[in-house]
Amino acid sequence: MALYVEKFGGTSVGSVERIDAVARQVARTRSEGHDVVVVVSAMSGETNRLQAMATEVHARASARELDVLLSTGEQVTIALLAMALDKRGCAARSYTGAQVHILTDNIHGKARIMEIDAEPIRRDLAEGRVVVVAGFQGADCDGNITTLGRGGSDTTAVALAAALKADECRIFTDVDGVYTADPRIVPEARRLERITVEEMLELSSLGAKVLQTRSVEFAGKYRVPLRVLSAFEAGGGTLISYEEDDMEQALISGIAHNRDEAKLTILGVPDEPGIAVRILGPVADAHINVDMIIQNVGEDGSTNFTFTVHRNDFPKAMEILEKTAKDVKAREVRGADDIAKVSVIGVGMRSHAGVASTMFKTLAEEGINIQMISTSEIKISVVLADKYLELAVRTLHKAFGLDQGQEG
Amino acid sequence: MALYVEKFGGTSVGSVERIDAVARQVARTRSEGHDVVVVVSAMSGETNRLQAMATEVHARASARELDVLLSTGEQVTIALLAMALDKRGCAARSYTGAQVHILTDNIHGKARIMEIDAEPIRRDLAEGRVVVVAGFQGADCDGNITTLGRGGSDTTAVALAAALKADECRIFTDVDGVYTADPRIVPEARRLERITVEEMLELSSLGAKVLQTRSVEFAGKYRVPLRVLSAFEAGGGTLISYEEDDMEQALISGIAHNRDEAKLTILGVPDEPGIAVRILGPVADAHINVDMIIQNVGEDGSTNFTFTVHRNDFPKAMEILEKTAKDVKAREVRGADDIAKVSVIGVGMRSHAGVASTMFKTLAEEGINIQMISTSEIKISVVLADKYLELAVRTLHKAFGLDQGQEG
Repeated sequence: MALYVEKFGGTSVGSVERIDAVARQVARTRSEGHDVVVVVSAMSGETNRLQAMATEVHARASARELDVLLSTGEQVTIALLAMALDKRGCAARSYTGAQVHILTDNIHGKARIMEIDAEPIRRDLAEGRVVVVAGFQGADCDGNITTLGRGGSDTTAVALAAALKADECRIFTDVDGVYTADPRIVPEARRLERITVEEMLELSSLGAKVLQTRSVEFAGKYRVPLRVLSAFEAGGGTLISYEEDDMEQALISGIAHNRDEAKLTILGVPDEPGIAVRILGPVADAHINVDMIIQNVGEDGSTNFTFTVHRNDFPKAMEILEKTAKDVKAREVRGADDIAKVSVIGVGMRSHAGVASTMFKTLAEEGINIQMISTSEIKISVVLADKYLELAVRTLHKAFGLDQGQEG
Repeated sequence: MALYVEKFGGTSVGSVERIDAVARQVARTRSEGHDVVVVVSAMSGETNRLQAMATEVHARASARELDVLLSTGEQVTIALLAMALDKRGCAARSYTGAQVHILTDNIHGKARIMEIDAEPIRRDLAEGRVVVVAGFQGADCDGNITTLGRGGSDTTAVALAAALKADECRIFTDVDGVYTADPRIVPEARRLERITVEEMLELSSLGAKVLQTRSVEFAGKYRVPLRVLSAFEAGGGTLISYEEDDMEQALISGIAHNRDEAKLTILGVPDEPGIAVRILGPVADAHINVDMIIQNVGEDGSTNFTFTVHRNDFPKAMEILEKTAKDVKAREVRGADDIAKVSVIGVGMRSHAGVASTMFKTLAEEGINIQMISTSEIKISVVLADKYLELAVRTLHKAFGLDQGQEG
């Protein structure tokens, strides 16, 4: 008999019928003799509906009150799911984040979980009940309701699995696992049976929207066996594992891509200490996140500076950068939002040289120009013209043998 | 500087615009230098919407999970109202029932408040904040969310006022006070400036739907100064007071009426001990509330038994009574739902004789036949054919001098 934490997102609980389907899935796990803790999000659309009401009342509503408001979304779902389970003869009890003592810091809207007191849940499980917990929410040490930010239900599930030492944390979603590439671009893409937590982290932060990045970090920290699988189809999904388990690593696990970025370049900047702060400081002050940053030596002792931002922030970032260019007496500012980022990811890179050169050679053979390069220990990202995105992903998928399932 | 608890019902917070109007009202009290605790209900329609979802999931959903679900209604309102206050520069903080430690018993759906820890609220007030509390809800000693039943927000407000020793508990509603009779029936009806708590209790239980009966009981127990006033118009409303305050009592404060009842009579019942239980027991077992009960001696040692129930329960009660009639060998069963109840209420009755005879004489002069009579220390109720209802109320209103404002 195992203990599973099963998490269902907003789409999976988006209607009364779907809540009933989730109850069926949970009842099945129960009927196999396992203990189940279920974590659910708000019904899809509900968080947006509540947010819109708040905006109507006050354009800059306080983060504390927003959390009081938004946390009702999951509270509705937990009650309905507990009722649906009860109807199937599966004893269940629902709890808000505060009720199961999900203690967070007090940063409303993006609180971090600090502690969970798993005892009350253990008692219910011991009495044969399914425990249904509201995702995305907790309470600070003064009892104020907090939320973990969008996608925070994944983190709730992982944190509960860690606190309960669950045998597996299962994230049910609208995809049936993690793929070697986006199947809409590469029809040959394969579902990975396993992926290491480091690879999953890179994938999440590179824009593969399967799991919230923070939940993967959390899983990694507490070594929670984490499985992504479909809420709508049967299948084993993808297990996020820990390196020791997998002696034989695949060289490359997958190809990620991202079309959401824009590139800004400032040319002929005086090459002096503190110049990066003078350029990026005003961007950060405007709450614009910067992704890749590259600095190169330019002509005559000056330097060139390129960075990427989310495409939505592009006009504002350009405006800021043009002002900065005058201040630092730069020669020129350039911007482009017709770019895409393609990344190859694999822990195998650590022990195998030649991944970068294979990547660059493959792209060159297709006549694809690389505009920027950024690397970490287990990934190489390149920025290229977005018209080449599909071609690049397909060609790299083939070049690294992912079509044939070289895994393991 | 006084401390007021101000309660606004579902209609008063039924839209974003109305929530803003409530914020304006509360901000006005604040600007006069007073401390304010606001209690709000769910936006009108919200509780029904949630209830309908529950029914869709499970026709007999557990009371515990219903409470988890329904309590989100007020939670939405408190957050929106705190935002609206904040927008008006009025610092505010919202709390659910559980957060301000409204401890109840564990009877889900109709829990009773046992204790309130007012300290956290006092701290916020001391720091200059308006405290916004969700009505209708609390938590039991295990932390389970409970609700007090429909109209329970009145009780929350009164209980908070008692715990905080507030100077006044103001119930804002869609009427501007308590009237000597229903103004739709008696155009001359006057708003009462004051009414005693006993009279208000009789009025509430007789069907004048201004305040929830339990909240009036609570106010009486803790002697909370309670005022009913309009959420939409200015005016002093009606103050529920305690007898000592009013040395000179009005003889009669008002005329109440109720069209929701039906009458059942069982004739020729053997007059023996335990017969009342044999007749009323099966009715109670079917969860049908009985209001008036009258037993009279009939012919030849048998007895006649008449009682009233809510009109909705009439067919079921008749069915039960006909079965009982066979069991106890009664002669006959009769029923009528074309009846109405008219009551005169006034603490002055205690010291003045003749109220009953004035009442009976007045009705007789209009040719109105009395079918049943029931009295308490401060009220006399009669049941009559419902076609006479308006005539009876208008005639009694005049006969007791309520048209001229004999009050005080």
